[in-house]
Amino acid sequence: MTADAATRPVTVLGLGLMGSALARAFLRAGHPTTVWNRSAAKAEALAAEGAQVAGSVAGAVAASPLVVVCVSDYHAVRELLGPIEGFEEGRTFVNLTSGTSREARELAAWGGGAYVDGAILAVPSGIGAAETPILYSGAADAFEEHADTLRVLGGAAAFLGADHGLASLHDVAVLSLMWGTLNGFLQGAAVLGAAGVDAASFAPLAAISANTVAGWLGGYAEQIDSGAYPGDDAALDTHLAAMEHLIDESEAVGLDASFPKAIKQLADRAVAAGRSKDSYAVLVEELRKR
Amino acid sequence: MTADAATRPVTVLGLGLMGSALARAFLRAGHPTTVWNRSAAKAEALAAEGAQVAGSVAGAVAASPLVVVCVSDYHAVRELLGPIEGFEEGRTFVNLTSGTSREARELAAWGGGAYVDGAILAVPSGIGAAETPILYSGAADAFEEHADTLRVLGGAAAFLGADHGLASLHDVAVLSLMWGTLNGFLQGAAVLGAAGVDAASFAPLAAISANTVAGWLGGYAEQIDSGAYPGDDAALDTHLAAMEHLIDESEAVGLDASFPKAIKQLADRAVAAGRSKDSYAVLVEELRKR
Repeated sequence: MTADAATRPVTVLGLGLMGSALARAFLRAGHPTTVWNRSAAKAEALAAEGAQVAGSVAGAVAASPLVVVCVSDYHAVRELLGPIEGFEEGRTFVNLTSGTSREARELAAWGGGAYVDGAILAVPSGIGAAETPILYSGAADAFEEHADTLRVLGGAAAFLGADHGLASLHDVAVLSLMWGTLNGFLQGAAVLGAAGVDAASFAPLAAISANTVAGWLGGYAEQIDSGAYPGDDAALDTHLAAMEHLIDESEAVGLDASFPKAIKQLADRAVAAGRSKDSYAVLVEELRKR
Repeated sequence: MTADAATRPVTVLGLGLMGSALARAFLRAGHPTTVWNRSAAKAEALAAEGAQVAGSVAGAVAASPLVVVCVSDYHAVRELLGPIEGFEEGRTFVNLTSGTSREARELAAWGGGAYVDGAILAVPSGIGAAETPILYSGAADAFEEHADTLRVLGGAAAFLGADHGLASLHDVAVLSLMWGTLNGFLQGAAVLGAAGVDAASFAPLAAISANTVAGWLGGYAEQIDSGAYPGDDAALDTHLAAMEHLIDESEAVGLDASFPKAIKQLADRAVAAGRSKDSYAVLVEELRKR
């Protein structure tokens, strides 16, 4: 980061757990930081750490060329920006509020101006770290102008394209993988727990397995993009037999089996569609046939 | 491995894709290898590579102190061993056929003798590699006696305990995590694909995310074992809001959303049970309340 970038003033609107973490990261990096929050108490805590507290949203926006917004949802973003009638000219707005791609696109259309949507793939305690990924999409020039400043929040910043919805879409795509992994782990831990195996002894094997699967994703992605799913080594019908086992093992010890059943249902449909000798990645085609 | 271990004769019963890979790994390591298969053609292919082809199961079992069985299912194991009335004395039987923990325990009770059940966490092309994990459980002394020989099949061999069901249980627990990760990835890839993002550009971020989750499993395992689930940084209600987004994004572009719905259903139940401020790992408790 250049010395010039470090002196740029920034504004943070919204001081929940995440918003406060964002403001603190800017303060630590030496940025003159203006904050605003609906309830004043949270702003006062940050004032003690060196932040300027604005008396109004308009005043907060006037203070800095870069305005970062992080509130509870997109409805709250619109309420917040209503008084200044959208994204003021000469300012870059970076909205890190969680929402859907449609909400981000609609906000872009409503607010006009230099709007970058963003998604933080981390918890508040991860803000400010070099490896923390934050995804951005929307106004490319505006992002470029403030990229160094934004990397203060998360060093692994990535700009995904002009479609304002891309950051949110990547966010839920990553969460989808994370929840899938975690629910799979919890189901496995519950099955083993019923046989007296504690989760701590399963965890190292589970972690190795998650890393192994991570190594397969690039190959499966190529299959998805090409639409050809050679199942040379592990065909879907082999998986299906083992899915039966997981359901049996779960039900035999009184566990809820809805997660493995949802997985098997999709595989059943693919086999019924004649894909039993294809690879696991062929299931993406079933997802597209709601 | 000692020179002595490398000269020990071994027998492989069943020469499907996996059984043939097992026999080849023994042959490559210099073990005198006897094979038997229901249909003779597959045995002949191995004879050309140096295997002795037995004329009967009894003959094959008589040839070696270690007998590895790998057939289609446990019913086939019993049919195979029927003529010799179970696990012959003086022999160690290692059954690498896929099945449930109950089938393994029942086979142990039926066959008597030195029986080790096993589960291969790999595809046939992985057999013989130092990093390939194969899990074993059952007769501990018998496993110990042949551990060096068995490591020829997969270097990352682990003995899990005297309960013959443990290998199968760990197998489905690992598969549960793998399927969960893959289905989560495919759902994410499908959501992004509908917005024109190809899977290959999602894969690197997805792989990083899978590795990140792998790093969380030890901590979540401790929570599961202790029964306390502090949700300090990422509470269940935060996840739940984002699960809504994944379902919305999926349905907005016409994708099947049954996978994220199964995930959200479990989280909804936990929140209804008052666990909204607990961590994600608290879902294991809902699994136990079928």
